[in-house]
Amino acid sequence: MTQAFSSLRINPDRMLDAFNQLAAIGSTGDGGVNRITFSEAHLAARKWFREHIQQSGLEFRTDGAGNHSALLPCTDPTAPTLILGSHLDSVPKGGRFDGALGVMAALEVLKTIRESGIKLKVQLEAMDFTDEEGTHLSLFGSSAISGHLSREALKNPYSGRENFTAGLARAGLTEDSLFTAKRPKESLAGYLELHIEQGKRLEKRGINIGVVSAIVGYGSYRMAYIGRADHAGSAAMEDRLDAGQGVSAFILETRQIVMRDFPNCVANVGKIEFAPGASNIVPARADFLLEFRSPDGKQLSDLETALMKLAREKAEQFGLQLNAEPLGRHAPNLMNTKIQEAFIASCAALELSSIVIPSGAIHDAQSLVDLCPVGMIFVPSVNGTSHSPFEFTEWQDCVNGTNVLLQAALKLGSG
Amino acid sequence: MTQAFSSLRINPDRMLDAFNQLAAIGSTGDGGVNRITFSEAHLAARKWFREHIQQSGLEFRTDGAGNHSALLPCTDPTAPTLILGSHLDSVPKGGRFDGALGVMAALEVLKTIRESGIKLKVQLEAMDFTDEEGTHLSLFGSSAISGHLSREALKNPYSGRENFTAGLARAGLTEDSLFTAKRPKESLAGYLELHIEQGKRLEKRGINIGVVSAIVGYGSYRMAYIGRADHAGSAAMEDRLDAGQGVSAFILETRQIVMRDFPNCVANVGKIEFAPGASNIVPARADFLLEFRSPDGKQLSDLETALMKLAREKAEQFGLQLNAEPLGRHAPNLMNTKIQEAFIASCAALELSSIVIPSGAIHDAQSLVDLCPVGMIFVPSVNGTSHSPFEFTEWQDCVNGTNVLLQAALKLGSG
Repeated sequence: MTQAFSSLRINPDRMLDAFNQLAAIGSTGDGGVNRITFSEAHLAARKWFREHIQQSGLEFRTDGAGNHSALLPCTDPTAPTLILGSHLDSVPKGGRFDGALGVMAALEVLKTIRESGIKLKVQLEAMDFTDEEGTHLSLFGSSAISGHLSREALKNPYSGRENFTAGLARAGLTEDSLFTAKRPKESLAGYLELHIEQGKRLEKRGINIGVVSAIVGYGSYRMAYIGRADHAGSAAMEDRLDAGQGVSAFILETRQIVMRDFPNCVANVGKIEFAPGASNIVPARADFLLEFRSPDGKQLSDLETALMKLAREKAEQFGLQLNAEPLGRHAPNLMNTKIQEAFIASCAALELSSIVIPSGAIHDAQSLVDLCPVGMIFVPSVNGTSHSPFEFTEWQDCVNGTNVLLQAALKLGSG
Repeated sequence: MTQAFSSLRINPDRMLDAFNQLAAIGSTGDGGVNRITFSEAHLAARKWFREHIQQSGLEFRTDGAGNHSALLPCTDPTAPTLILGSHLDSVPKGGRFDGALGVMAALEVLKTIRESGIKLKVQLEAMDFTDEEGTHLSLFGSSAISGHLSREALKNPYSGRENFTAGLARAGLTEDSLFTAKRPKESLAGYLELHIEQGKRLEKRGINIGVVSAIVGYGSYRMAYIGRADHAGSAAMEDRLDAGQGVSAFILETRQIVMRDFPNCVANVGKIEFAPGASNIVPARADFLLEFRSPDGKQLSDLETALMKLAREKAEQFGLQLNAEPLGRHAPNLMNTKIQEAFIASCAALELSSIVIPSGAIHDAQSLVDLCPVGMIFVPSVNGTSHSPFEFTEWQDCVNGTNVLLQAALKLGSG
């Protein structure tokens, strides 16, 4: 790489100005944004992005899945495309960094390279993927590009059919148009994404950049312990078949097992209900949702086996029946090692500390791993807070991450 | 007691016939009954009871709280009254024995004594108390008789004001009439109740009759552990403040503490909710209801202290905040020792085994302890099942209990 390349830096103030304009759209007034996919605020953010691209002298593009992007063309029109991106939609009452920072960083990288006059061997595209957060369908826009989106999935969107089709119409899309967004493999040079960490591993260790090794795979189960409803006054403790005991022991020991035997893995019971659900009736039934994640496919299977064994042991210990119905499963997605190396080298050149870590959350990056080399970096989240108006990343960390993204794009685009 | 007294026995077939007629009213078709207070089925059962009393040659009585009874008058009209009774209302989809057996047993005792020509020194009254189960207000009819019913309680019935006043109207009652049901202390000689155990202590030990020592006191709390919502994929296990861990440890150790340190006591967590309540979010908050019971006042306080100490320890262990709001508290009600002795002696004379045990459930008997000597016996419940259509007691056990009730009534009524 030439000296001109390696000394190139993004414009922090220009990027902050754009970031703040965007954060005002759908603002919750307390630092957060409410931009669920195809809501009025989300459509306004999309419109702002389109106009901002056009005002920047970049080319605006869209596709049948509503993905919006800025294009910096290559002198060779047949060259493949290196996409940089993330998403502008948010969870309900979410933060202003999640997704939006990645899109603004991608755009700033294109502006910086355009301004420098540097000519790369790829088309550069800064993309806002539709509905990453899954108001309607998780990773909807990136799945349409990769061809993973199925007609089957459209039948049962999270938002319900009526909200989904009304949302598509508001965005000028149709169910048929979604399937036109698919891109051929040979058209893509790679995909890079910058995102906030949504955890506190970087913050705790005082490290600038997390280079993502893999997006964790996950498994989830709908589970129930079934005992017997008894009068909570007249049934002696030793005669009860209390479903609450089984689930409590399972929740406690799940945490112990994961922390002891499964480093880098996590598990969660986030929803629970006792039935009949009265103060004076021993719980006959405890229904709960379990999910667990691992960056490694073999480890994910071992964790699943260990948790199901634990669940059966607790059923036996408390004389309960166990129901365990698998809900979802997704294998871990490995990030491209050459791109990881490019990120690490860029950090070193910029005198930023880095660490290789898995991503516990899902991201658009995982949609594209079958299609092209994919890489991702994290910047620190204060207190690890995310999906909350209190989500925050220091601006210098945003700038650092964007410079790493720029350097990696230059490396990959000129190779 | 004379030979004629001690050899007197109830008529099992006559009682079974009446019991079965009653069980058909509001039948759920699977052995249970659905006779919530002032429902059509409950009013039909009350009408049947009134007509059955009149056909039996006993005197029918009612009062301003809708309590219905059969009267076998004493030759001395100024003599005090010995009440035998229970209730005809049920929980939703309840069993046909809970309450109904006690009323049918009381009525059979009056029929048997009337038939025998024996003259006692008391008025004998077989009573159906209104709304023991608390569709509107727990122990409503017996509280009206004892004078414990307050105008305050009427403002906030479990069923809501509208259902309550509509129910009163259907039964021909008014809020003012309820307060006319109060009986003067000197008018009562005592109160005896036969009830199914609703537990399996008798069944497990193969004992015929439980002589109740006390109706347990109870305490209840609305509690919450408060931690922090985190992304269940990206927040490391050791960084979480998971409210689910606190409540799980509390539920498990509550059971261990009660079984180890508080014999005859019970505790229950019957309702729980995690917030935000999503599979992929670490529970920020766990709300739950705790209740605990003891037959002894000092022990009840010690148990409360131990459970609140445990709750605080678990909050500290998992880095959570704790909310604990007392909801209700009721001191234990001791049964009269002379009546306990009369029951025990009656069991011995009938060659039935007996054991003195506390009642974990509340009963109309406790409303009357300030007013007159009160006693209560239990007959075995198969599998301890209650508040369920599967509630069942062998008919011979019902007959045994009713003969004990008869003998105790003769002893107390002739003394």
